Amino acid sequence: MTDKKILRIVPIGGLGEVGKNMTLYEYGNDILMVDAGIMFPENDMIGIDYIIPDYEDYLKDKKHRVRGIIFTHGHEDHIGAIQHILEEINAPIYATKLTRGLVEVKLNRYGLTHKADLHTIKAGDRVQIGSFTVDFFHVCHSIPDAVGLGIDSPAGLVVHTGDYKFDHTPVDNWPTDYAKLAEFAERGVMALLADSTNATEPGWTQSERVIDDALDEVFEKAEGRILVATFASLISRMQQVANAAERHGRKIAFTGRSMVDNMNMARELGYVDFPERLVISLEKSLSMPDNQVVLMATGSQGEPRSIMGRLASGTNRKFDLRESDTIVLSSHTIPGNEESVYRTINNLFRRGAEVVYESIAPVHVSGHASQEEMKLLLHLVRPQHLIPMHGELRMLKQHARLAEEVGMPKDKIAVVENGQVIEFVDGELQLRERIPGGYIFVDGSGVGSVDRSIVQERESLGQDGIMVVNVVVSKDNGHLKSKPEILTRGFMLPAELDPIMDGLNSQIQQTVDKSNGNLYNEVLRSVKSYLYQETKRNPFIFVTINQV
Amino acid sequence: MTDKKILRIVPIGGLGEVGKNMTLYEYGNDILMVDAGIMFPENDMIGIDYIIPDYEDYLKDKKHRVRGIIFTHGHEDHIGAIQHILEEINAPIYATKLTRGLVEVKLNRYGLTHKADLHTIKAGDRVQIGSFTVDFFHVCHSIPDAVGLGIDSPAGLVVHTGDYKFDHTPVDNWPTDYAKLAEFAERGVMALLADSTNATEPGWTQSERVIDDALDEVFEKAEGRILVATFASLISRMQQVANAAERHGRKIAFTGRSMVDNMNMARELGYVDFPERLVISLEKSLSMPDNQVVLMATGSQGEPRSIMGRLASGTNRKFDLRESDTIVLSSHTIPGNEESVYRTINNLFRRGAEVVYESIAPVHVSGHASQEEMKLLLHLVRPQHLIPMHGELRMLKQHARLAEEVGMPKDKIAVVENGQVIEFVDGELQLRERIPGGYIFVDGSGVGSVDRSIVQERESLGQDGIMVVNVVVSKDNGHLKSKPEILTRGFMLPAELDPIMDGLNSQIQQTVDKSNGNLYNEVLRSVKSYLYQETKRNPFIFVTINQV
Repeated sequence: MTDKKILRIVPIGGLGEVGKNMTLYEYGNDILMVDAGIMFPENDMIGIDYIIPDYEDYLKDKKHRVRGIIFTHGHEDHIGAIQHILEEINAPIYATKLTRGLVEVKLNRYGLTHKADLHTIKAGDRVQIGSFTVDFFHVCHSIPDAVGLGIDSPAGLVVHTGDYKFDHTPVDNWPTDYAKLAEFAERGVMALLADSTNATEPGWTQSERVIDDALDEVFEKAEGRILVATFASLISRMQQVANAAERHGRKIAFTGRSMVDNMNMARELGYVDFPERLVISLEKSLSMPDNQVVLMATGSQGEPRSIMGRLASGTNRKFDLRESDTIVLSSHTIPGNEESVYRTINNLFRRGAEVVYESIAPVHVSGHASQEEMKLLLHLVRPQHLIPMHGELRMLKQHARLAEEVGMPKDKIAVVENGQVIEFVDGELQLRERIPGGYIFVDGSGVGSVDRSIVQERESLGQDGIMVVNVVVSKDNGHLKSKPEILTRGFMLPAELDPIMDGLNSQIQQTVDKSNGNLYNEVLRSVKSYLYQETKRNPFIFVTINQV
Repeated sequence: MTDKKILRIVPIGGLGEVGKNMTLYEYGNDILMVDAGIMFPENDMIGIDYIIPDYEDYLKDKKHRVRGIIFTHGHEDHIGAIQHILEEINAPIYATKLTRGLVEVKLNRYGLTHKADLHTIKAGDRVQIGSFTVDFFHVCHSIPDAVGLGIDSPAGLVVHTGDYKFDHTPVDNWPTDYAKLAEFAERGVMALLADSTNATEPGWTQSERVIDDALDEVFEKAEGRILVATFASLISRMQQVANAAERHGRKIAFTGRSMVDNMNMARELGYVDFPERLVISLEKSLSMPDNQVVLMATGSQGEPRSIMGRLASGTNRKFDLRESDTIVLSSHTIPGNEESVYRTINNLFRRGAEVVYESIAPVHVSGHASQEEMKLLLHLVRPQHLIPMHGELRMLKQHARLAEEVGMPKDKIAVVENGQVIEFVDGELQLRERIPGGYIFVDGSGVGSVDRSIVQERESLGQDGIMVVNVVVSKDNGHLKSKPEILTRGFMLPAELDPIMDGLNSQIQQTVDKSNGNLYNEVLRSVKSYLYQETKRNPFIFVTINQV
């Protein structure tokens, strides 16, 4: 038996973006976990709060072999599952200072900080984690202090970009580390695992810097208050808005728990730099002249319970929208949220505010590389293999096309989906089994107490509403003891339902009278067919039979 | 009393796009209805098939005053409600030849053709309808034979664009009628009601002609079959695809009832021109070599029950997807459908097909004017007033901004929503009452048997699922006669539910034993609070109490 050198790579999750929330690297007895984030539910995943990658299945008998957990940056889709992971896996956690800060804000909320073995690393560091030698290198993204990874093992060097773009004029003046990428190329890169999010976007992603000009234009025109909505984790946007406030003689107030927590943490760690006099409390801001105030809040995705959502519906508690307010939605609409974001925008307009959003002014730019940057990355890293990551299948396919355009052989590109086990055996790429599993739904207090089948039940419940038919039958003579009790919800308006109720009652009575003994099924079927015949609808029907 | 000349304009509908589905013009005793279309439901309007404008409320006592119904073009959002309207209103219908053809295809399906008093008009015609003198003028749109209207009455001239764009090289070589617009300007236009759909799009909408080049590129690369998905009403796209088939030596087959019906009608009326030998049956196409075939089908919105949806899920009846197939989605994704369209694209890729869609190649262009065209329209028509139409509020606001940029005074622009009654009194714009009403939901066989409240019930049913608690209590001693019967759906997995069932049963028993007489409410409340305490979830709960 020869001693083959084998590196296994497993992107974990369901049909979501490949390797976005978690990727495992395995060499010999050592496993390295990169990211542990959450996915947001799709529109038809009714009642689901968020989704975590189903790592349980693959790791069930090898959790003790996890030597480390690396977070590439502090966004929820990369760190959001940490509180679940910590219950099962107790490996050292590696993150840059800001990312660690964001992880700690989260762990504090769950009272779990003591359980975590946190290690601060910085871009440029090299750390040995089990069999892996990991080089951390700086990348630009829509959050400061993001890193990509050079993951070396006896099987070969893999470059894992995480989320990245090549911004030449980033807000923190810290560009992506081109030199390190070139150095990897010198060493020889067996495989590149790279972000595909913007694979369908031509050109080069705009620099975060253009937002400054767009903000200036908004600030010049605004006559009343300015409210800027963005993600709580968009630390660099806080700095940009604060700078604009300073330039235009306004004070800034932050509102919403996660935004305030993150701002305080980033300020403490030095990732934002505000003069003391610039930041005021929300309460203070409400008593100042409108044209001297900027508010920053969450709710850029139109979430009904966020501050922006509540302002749009007129149900915010601490303050109301004013007609002279200018609202800036400084973030990208997450695919699937278009309807709720646009509904929120329309409602804000309806209440008299001015609204500035991505379609009409560059108040947000993407944090991900576009096509020309992807090509540059390929030329810088010169990988033997490409595994497009972080994207829906259609984006991965497009990333693969781009790689072919710049000259990569088709057979060196592997478009895979979550759960697909990839092995590099002495430098050769081989696709292995696809592990089952996928999503774990988190809902209310429950992790995993709801699965796809329950979500589908929920969807079907909503489709045509439901009807409960409660029947009391005499044990003595087999006839109804009383008129059936019929309850409905989400089915039809009472005025439309009433005309068919007599028919429904006598239908049930006849069914009971002619029963062959299987009352439950007979009643269910006759109610179902009667309703379909009369209404062309199929509500979900519950039948309860009480024989007394 | 002076004799004021008053024109009333009422865009009808709910919170949807203003005047998109129906606009009423009223002068003296005469009412003119422009368009009668349907709206597609939003994602949270569960179980709704489509929505018609609530014209009932405004017209209830004046249906007999409707002197005519004009259809500007043959898309569903402008003609789709005709079968409902005809039951109530029997006025002459005016439409161009193709639009009339599409209306007739629809009426035939409902057996209603005999009820309709159809009049064919053509661009350039002038028709007297009650007090209104209507000039029909040609506009380019994503369907041939579309018209805009010059609606003259003693109160003044109104230009109503309908959906339009200024395509210099349309597929049918028939550009928008600039001369007529200029002629209106000469006569003096009191008000312009204009399409705002693309008010947030800078520049000029691309010509339909660019699709030819994009199709050529697809046809050159494709090694197997080509399947083109689009709307059944996109008549000009049929011609473009057929031309590409001819150029590249392929035959074309149409599949899907509405697509075949529309194609046959358009062919009969001369709106498409295919050589006899070019068009083959679906059956024929399935037995030909893959590289000699193009199929055209519906399903470009990812509808699960459409042919594309079924191909993507592997459940199509007549034929399956093949690995060498190239799929072209030649249509715009309707806002709100992004998730289902992208899911379909991903599934098609997953099954091995190549997929070409709007984000990666110009296989579709918008049928609506962009910002520079909107400005051109304003300069051509030189209206005294602008009422932005056809768009969400955010688009209307942007259209108003553009008009201000080209010099229109702010007080001559009225951004209104559906139901807002507008009056021009001796040429002065005045906003009157806002009429109630909005949507009428159509669901299964029912028109209006479901309203917002029922749709909200459906949404809440899905949220956490439901539980039915059926209790039999002894009349004699007030105690339970048997263990409560508990049914759930969409709530939790049985394995997660089982551990709390004993607790729930004894909770119910205690509640019954300690009852103060209002058993229904007492049981409901105790079950609700027990479930929330144990699961942090709020399923919808039905309680049935049987006292025997």
